[in-house]
Amino acid sequence: MLTLYHSPMSRSSRIVTLIEELGAADTVRIVEVGIARQDGTGYRDPANPHPEGKVPALEHDGALILESIAIAQHLCELFPDAGLLPAAATPQRGKCLEWLAWYAGVIEPVVVAKFLNIDDPRFASNFRDWDTAMTRLTGALDGRDWLVGDHYTVADLIVHSLFNWMPDMLPDHHGTKAWHERIAARPAAQNTMARDRAAMEVE
Amino acid sequence: MLTLYHSPMSRSSRIVTLIEELGAADTVRIVEVGIARQDGTGYRDPANPHPEGKVPALEHDGALILESIAIAQHLCELFPDAGLLPAAATPQRGKCLEWLAWYAGVIEPVVVAKFLNIDDPRFASNFRDWDTAMTRLTGALDGRDWLVGDHYTVADLIVHSLFNWMPDMLPDHHGTKAWHERIAARPAAQNTMARDRAAMEVE
Repeated sequence: MLTLYHSPMSRSSRIVTLIEELGAADTVRIVEVGIARQDGTGYRDPANPHPEGKVPALEHDGALILESIAIAQHLCELFPDAGLLPAAATPQRGKCLEWLAWYAGVIEPVVVAKFLNIDDPRFASNFRDWDTAMTRLTGALDGRDWLVGDHYTVADLIVHSLFNWMPDMLPDHHGTKAWHERIAARPAAQNTMARDRAAMEVE
Repeated sequence: MLTLYHSPMSRSSRIVTLIEELGAADTVRIVEVGIARQDGTGYRDPANPHPEGKVPALEHDGALILESIAIAQHLCELFPDAGLLPAAATPQRGKCLEWLAWYAGVIEPVVVAKFLNIDDPRFASNFRDWDTAMTRLTGALDGRDWLVGDHYTVADLIVHSLFNWMPDMLPDHHGTKAWHERIAARPAAQNTMARDRAAMEVE
């Protein structure tokens, strides 16, 4: 039994997209909950089992699994036929895990620091700065369509999710912009956006 | 062919410990490289293939895999008999992935913010604050010996690595302190510490 706790237009939206990409929409129940948003709207929803009131949270047979990249990888392993995560113990698997870890451990701190004007070289020496991070991304997408191997994987979905929210942050690099267009145009991404927009209008 | 690029007393030390815990010391070649350290010592080593001069970096059949939690998980998948990562698609696997993601995506930003006196509530609302993070940890170790299931896993190794460096940061909680003692006493952890100390003395 799998239940995703989701709030529209939030960090859980990418997991909703992933569920459709995995062909798992009939298997994973999606429960919509409220969250306290950065702009001061919203509220901490008692129906959300996340101990800090965040999303996403995934219940799997009674176990509560948190953190976006863990949930994303776990769902890919539960639905392996979709091929969104390379086979275990292959070099491509390692690269895919690297991009997930890089998103959570580099991109999230670096982008938050950028927005909060945290300009401490010691912060950058731990997490990189924005330009160094973007150099890694554009280097990977220079002449290549996808981050890992020759097709769309969970690495593309998670790393791209930043630009789903903030397309203005896209580096001025042809391959990276084409990658963005390719991912944003996928039916699952479009469907999540339409459903999230409709849900926000009802609220 | 597997090669780990390691620098003594650094973020790669825990991967050296993991390699011994996995029984993989004869299979993974360890190459020692220099790094630029926070205290201004050290240097960026041209022998290190990491594009930002950091450690750890793992070469697997010519592919370069970066980010500690990705390398740790990938090694566990390459050496599954050690049982340091629960089987794919089980709830325990999801919990183990959660702790790895939590370490990279929560603990690292929160501890760096603590040391740099970044006291912005928007930073905390993205990543949590130190007390919230420690509440999650002590809650998991209250009456339980290990973070996932009933034995030591890669989640214990990675999450604990913070306290390997900074035992003074350990929360004042009996279960968490006992967990720390249990992990620090493991032969592989002791061996890494001894080897790293000897290597630093030679430098």
